[in-house]
Amino acid sequence: MKSHTEHLLMHTKRKQEFINITQQVEDAIAKSGIEEGLVLINPMHITAAVYVNDNESGLIDDFQVWLEKLAPAGLDYKHHWTGEDNADAHLKRQLMGHQVTMAVTKGKLELGPWEQIFYAEFDGQRAKRVLIKIIGE
Amino acid sequence: MKSHTEHLLMHTKRKQEFINITQQVEDAIAKSGIEEGLVLINPMHITAAVYVNDNESGLIDDFQVWLEKLAPAGLDYKHHWTGEDNADAHLKRQLMGHQVTMAVTKGKLELGPWEQIFYAEFDGQRAKRVLIKIIGE
Amino acid sequence: MKSHTEHLLMHTKRKQEFINITQQVEDAIAKSGIEEGLVLINPMHITAAVYVNDNESGLIDDFQVWLEKLAPAGLDYKHHWTGEDNADAHLKRQLMGHQVTMAVTKGKLELGPWEQIFYAEFDGQRAKRVLIKIIGE
Repeated sequence: MKSHTEHLLMHTKRKQEFINITQQVEDAIAKSGIEEGLVLINPMHITAAVYVNDNESGLIDDFQVWLEKLAPAGLDYKHHWTGEDNADAHLKRQLMGHQVTMAVTKGKLELGPWEQIFYAEFDGQRAKRVLIKIIGE
Repeated sequence: MKSHTEHLLMHTKRKQEFINITQQVEDAIAKSGIEEGLVLINPMHITAAVYVNDNESGLIDDFQVWLEKLAPAGLDYKHHWTGEDNADAHLKRQLMGHQVTMAVTKGKLELGPWEQIFYAEFDGQRAKRVLIKIIGE
Repeated sequence: MKSHTEHLLMHTKRKQEFINITQQVEDAIAKSGIEEGLVLINPMHITAAVYVNDNESGLIDDFQVWLEKLAPAGLDYKHHWTGEDNADAHLKRQLMGHQVTMAVTKGKLELGPWEQIFYAEFDGQRAKRVLIKIIGE
């Protein structure tokens, strides 16, 4: 069995930002030399998510409007008694599904026709990391 | 290490449909010859989800009513400016959790007493695929 | 390839309870002797979730209030026609994302600075199990 571990550094300009990281995952797989396996892509911070969906800017706007409706910023969250102001970011990241595991087949990231991997930042403007872990052979 | 890759073909009659695919996952594991490992079940299309929950028709109806409430069809989504009309399907699939990874133990899919694996289609009536990827030994 | 399978027994006092299981996952990894791999943590029951987020009691309260708003108990769910009264628990567990896969790196659970693994029980006061499955080398 082989394994490969890599960390992407993220530092968004805006507080909320969605970034396509599919190419970085493909690059990590190429570096790993793994032909058949699984790749986990996990945001190491708890106010961000990694998810798979369409690379279409209108839909990304829709996600943001929708998440704001279901998990609004600015409510009187108990988490804010600690001095934090980002409880909504913790909720939003759960709604998006937090993390993904994808297949590596014949040395490549196996994607459906429209699948793209995104990093969704909900409390940015600071350094964060995304873990890419590949195991296989 | 061994690996096994398989694709289920889905083509639902209705636009929205929930289909129990547990048996197909079990069959893929049997074919793989893998005794101990992990199996990823990932819908390769971004308006469908794979999830684990109860095989009870009332609950499946509840899921559909609930998803319609949280991610309604027919709103003025920006994604629709592209000519699409399925933004709600992209949102619903995120709510259900998108994909699952399960354990293969002693040559079998290891399930709790009520765990069943479902394919949830939110924009059907066309051909789609579900990826089953098993790695282990 | 090595693998290790373990089951945590859960039996919460309250119907709804969130329990930090990070230490148990770390212990299972230590026992496995696996240095590089993946660990799946999957609740084997369909009214509970395993998720990763902050170990902060205010935020845990916020999660509970929020889940009650998005997936309320006590509605006229069809699932209840079977005699059950826990449809909301099935919905809540989907919202939290159901399960997680994490990385094992250099013999340890690889966590970001605030990542902790939680078991979220939504229909407790009875015996349940959480599956920990580690594969790697």
